[in-house]
Amino acid sequence: MIIVPEAEIAGLIDADASFDAVEQVFAAMAAGDAYNFPVVREAIGHEDALYGFKGGFDRSGLVLGLKAGGYWPNNLERRNLINHQSTVFLFDPDTGKAKAMVGGNLLTALRTAAASSVSIKHLARPDAKVLGMVGAGHQSHFQLRAAVRQRDFERVVAWNYHPDMLPKLGQTAAELGLPFETVSLEELGAQADVIITITSAFAPSLMDAHVTPGTHVACMGTDTKGKQEVEAALVARATVFTDEVAQSVSIGEAQHAVGQGLKAEADIHQLGAVINGAHPGRTSEGEVTLFDGTGVGLQDLAVADRAVQLAVEKGVATEVAF
Amino acid sequence: MIIVPEAEIAGLIDADASFDAVEQVFAAMAAGDAYNFPVVREAIGHEDALYGFKGGFDRSGLVLGLKAGGYWPNNLERRNLINHQSTVFLFDPDTGKAKAMVGGNLLTALRTAAASSVSIKHLARPDAKVLGMVGAGHQSHFQLRAAVRQRDFERVVAWNYHPDMLPKLGQTAAELGLPFETVSLEELGAQADVIITITSAFAPSLMDAHVTPGTHVACMGTDTKGKQEVEAALVARATVFTDEVAQSVSIGEAQHAVGQGLKAEADIHQLGAVINGAHPGRTSEGEVTLFDGTGVGLQDLAVADRAVQLAVEKGVATEVAF
Repeated sequence: MIIVPEAEIAGLIDADASFDAVEQVFAAMAAGDAYNFPVVREAIGHEDALYGFKGGFDRSGLVLGLKAGGYWPNNLERRNLINHQSTVFLFDPDTGKAKAMVGGNLLTALRTAAASSVSIKHLARPDAKVLGMVGAGHQSHFQLRAAVRQRDFERVVAWNYHPDMLPKLGQTAAELGLPFETVSLEELGAQADVIITITSAFAPSLMDAHVTPGTHVACMGTDTKGKQEVEAALVARATVFTDEVAQSVSIGEAQHAVGQGLKAEADIHQLGAVINGAHPGRTSEGEVTLFDGTGVGLQDLAVADRAVQLAVEKGVATEVAF
Repeated sequence: MIIVPEAEIAGLIDADASFDAVEQVFAAMAAGDAYNFPVVREAIGHEDALYGFKGGFDRSGLVLGLKAGGYWPNNLERRNLINHQSTVFLFDPDTGKAKAMVGGNLLTALRTAAASSVSIKHLARPDAKVLGMVGAGHQSHFQLRAAVRQRDFERVVAWNYHPDMLPKLGQTAAELGLPFETVSLEELGAQADVIITITSAFAPSLMDAHVTPGTHVACMGTDTKGKQEVEAALVARATVFTDEVAQSVSIGEAQHAVGQGLKAEADIHQLGAVINGAHPGRTSEGEVTLFDGTGVGLQDLAVADRAVQLAVEKGVATEVAF
């Protein structure tokens, strides 16, 4: 039994390795070689916590297991712990025995960032130069770092509900050598070739009229019924891709457009199909593409499996008798 | 993070400690202080394995977590490993951090045996003398050992689909100082005051006509849609108790009587309500009581939590940084 503590993850797996793991598992999902189990998500009636399990099995990579954990909203204030707490457990699919336990907090941030990055690689115009960020919270920094690897971005424009959080995102852009400008949503939509939305909102900020032809939009914040980052008309207009269609139409950004009859579920495609070549992806310069990143357990398992491999290679895995 | 490997469990927790843990959590469930999460159970399409998660939260005992694992039917033949493989993961309900990982194989056997034992304590006639065993597989030995602690049983009568397995169960009875006799189901029903069924069958063996007034029957083998150990008419005739009503009527022994309209779901009671005094349990000497033990995640968490406590007390818990 291999233990990879949370504190080791940062030294093991980076945005590139996370990208590869997530790209592969999205492809496996679209090929029918990997699937996610039903998600368990419970308000446990203690500490206002949400707790649950996201499991799955990748038959091609032989990765089986789950991420367990959730959201403890009082952690930071009361205990100086981060509010999202999760752990990944991997099992040997040949025997059912527990194989590895891996800290899941940083991995969750990395796999979420990797998903939008994979979407940019496969859906954004090759000549994209301006990256727009809607959102400036903790996760936005991961999305930014992962996104800039995919195109020759020349600058970043950003908007946030709380403008005071934008300078910190500007620092990350500066570290990446990119000019950074705070703009209105109108300016952001007019200038950006790629837009990442990473907010936690229940009403749209980015509207259809903001977005110009040829843009790729990655909506990464909506993972619950009722949440919404972009106007349903934008989802209706775009060619829409997602990690998992069932989640996209129920808890993802597409829930609103589909619920209002503006988009058919059949017109929402798996990003993995583009990776596999089964779907052409973007077919014109003027097309708006949209990736609805809802977050699936297989992403967590994929990056955790990679972290375990790297921990073993680097000799930092803790082996315990079990 | 505490690790309690499978190999340590036998030295830590016995039938008595398992009994106490299961009795307490059944009571907490009936009091509304503990609940089970939706069960995930997947045929993963590899090694013919069934894999899944049974989670729950006991607010009174502050026990949160899940059992993960399942059934790998080729383990024994191909790898000399037992086919049922499971691991229990406990979390700190105050923070969401992983707290303990515990080998779940022996614990599963102990908690299943504890459930029928709890039912015997609270539902069997005080003067019960003859214990009837229907089934003689691996789990039957655990059920027998746990059952005999609850009444002054004077002898054991037993039947099994495969009679060649009965002598081994007879050895266990001998170890417990009890005479053991192989009988027909007619004889078993006529003689036994308490009957435990622990088979894995899809058609009833124990029929209504076999069972005499005053008997307590604990049906422990049915945990899946389609399985059946006793005739539906027996369930209809008995006062029925269970660990969890929703499971009893869908995957438990009561699925057939309820499905055929012979028993109302409202007439199936939580065993915990008897423990709590909210239900009188047996109210006459001639009443047939029946416990439908379907197996819930909270049982696994309860015995795992107890094993962790005992491991810490005895200094055999492995602590790892996580």
